Amino acid sequence: MSRQTFDLTILGSSSATPTATRNPTSQLLNIAERFFLIDCGEATQIQLRRFKCKFQKIDHIFISHLHGDHFLGLPGLLASMHLLGRKQELCIYAPAALEEIISLINSQSDTMLNYPIRFIHTDDKGLNKLYEDQKVEVFSFPLKHRIKTTGFLFREKPAMRNIDKFKLEKHHVSLAEIHKLKMGEDAIADDGRIIPNAELTTDPLPPRSYAYCSDTLFHEEMADFIQHVDLLYHESTFLEDKKDRAKVTFHSTAMQAATMARLAHAKQLVLGHFSARYGELDDFLTEASGIFPQVELATEGKKISL
Amino acid sequence: MSRQTFDLTILGSSSATPTATRNPTSQLLNIAERFFLIDCGEATQIQLRRFKCKFQKIDHIFISHLHGDHFLGLPGLLASMHLLGRKQELCIYAPAALEEIISLINSQSDTMLNYPIRFIHTDDKGLNKLYEDQKVEVFSFPLKHRIKTTGFLFREKPAMRNIDKFKLEKHHVSLAEIHKLKMGEDAIADDGRIIPNAELTTDPLPPRSYAYCSDTLFHEEMADFIQHVDLLYHESTFLEDKKDRAKVTFHSTAMQAATMARLAHAKQLVLGHFSARYGELDDFLTEASGIFPQVELATEGKKISL
Repeated sequence: MSRQTFDLTILGSSSATPTATRNPTSQLLNIAERFFLIDCGEATQIQLRRFKCKFQKIDHIFISHLHGDHFLGLPGLLASMHLLGRKQELCIYAPAALEEIISLINSQSDTMLNYPIRFIHTDDKGLNKLYEDQKVEVFSFPLKHRIKTTGFLFREKPAMRNIDKFKLEKHHVSLAEIHKLKMGEDAIADDGRIIPNAELTTDPLPPRSYAYCSDTLFHEEMADFIQHVDLLYHESTFLEDKKDRAKVTFHSTAMQAATMARLAHAKQLVLGHFSARYGELDDFLTEASGIFPQVELATEGKKISL
Repeated sequence: MSRQTFDLTILGSSSATPTATRNPTSQLLNIAERFFLIDCGEATQIQLRRFKCKFQKIDHIFISHLHGDHFLGLPGLLASMHLLGRKQELCIYAPAALEEIISLINSQSDTMLNYPIRFIHTDDKGLNKLYEDQKVEVFSFPLKHRIKTTGFLFREKPAMRNIDKFKLEKHHVSLAEIHKLKMGEDAIADDGRIIPNAELTTDPLPPRSYAYCSDTLFHEEMADFIQHVDLLYHESTFLEDKKDRAKVTFHSTAMQAATMARLAHAKQLVLGHFSARYGELDDFLTEASGIFPQVELATEGKKISL
């Protein structure tokens, strides 16, 4: 049985100043056909088209903080969604002031969007559940940056237990018992015998998770929020020889990102938000892999599937 | 003698919704090493880098109106100018509300730009001089769009008359007379004779001009503002078979743009602001060239030199 989708697509990997080949930060996460857009730097709508992502399927947009390279693509994306006929609600999870910015831009351009937007204001204190449905939960957690900033944790809910149909037949357990079995309860056979759950089911695959750590200083306490995450995105604006610069600007180095992946017992790490001063990025991989070998670089258009 | 530079570079040719290959509107005009940015749609700073335009040389930015596809690249460009060390003043000619939008975005992102911005508020009534130096003048003029919108007219000042040095020697006219001659006055020879200006000088090349007609309904009166322009950019969002749609949305067709070029006695026409509904653009050329043959399409990165 194939698992439900869990795909991350990188739309932009640059820090504040884009380059000719690297766009400001944005990512598209598809969990079980829920499309979550994470940050929305300038030109995100162009990147979505370039990589053939259907942006009308995006119903939830998460903005980590209000530095321009993380949200300036949003007004244009909202306008294009409108012009292309969107009707369904869009939820935007972001610091409160984003609502004011979007309202001002839309009123000055005399734009009345044809679809409703629901703003959910984020808070940079503690772990907060922002979204939940049958299959997925999303949380924010605090980062340490120059202005209020949150990371986001996306987590599948635990799957139900897998039924062994041959065992069901063998023990004469009717289909009416399946729901109880999937939930972990024991079953009653046609002849009244109680059959233990473990005899009829197997463990489901463990739920997967993705943590997005946008602009932040390295701080150990962050690891508490993202323990055992399957995939960790962590900014690495600089290499370690610029760690003083990283500290002053509230950013991290490749080595610090790798250290965080280790502290969090992550399974995979992806680095991004590279300063425009770096042309080639090989040194980022070399530096991080000494500490955390399961590391790769965010590059425009890359898809990482769990 | 080579003339001073008069180059237009197209940075974006799409209408409101960008496509994978067409960016929102922006153009860079270089007249005698004055760099004028005209409109600044999303991702303009990325286009400037892609086409190797040095954006710190831009000291004047002209915004035609506050629809997002004409200004949403501005906040990011301003931030990048700051991050890359700009100190010199930047002048922005735009509707007044743009200042409010930029202020709100910068205050919410805790951004204090390291260089001064001077906002010059445009007015959509009549011809208004916005800028003037020794060599160039820039004017705004009204367009007819859903919100207040102006076009821009860029004009070289008349050059001084060209001195014929051989005739100067022949008539024994000293170098002290040159300034008067360049200004069109007669000269006095060493022996006191008055030598007519026409004997010693030749006509300068005529001043060149560029008119930028952003989003607008076709309306004949506009031609009065741009008579005998050397190069006319005119939006053509649609083809003529969609002229009803053009009217409803306050846009123009290729045929209307060509008609305006003819009414204005322009020398060359460039079409842009193409709707995302069109993939290939050959029909725009075909339609316009029937009325005005000296026509070409705006395409990303194209440079037109006068």
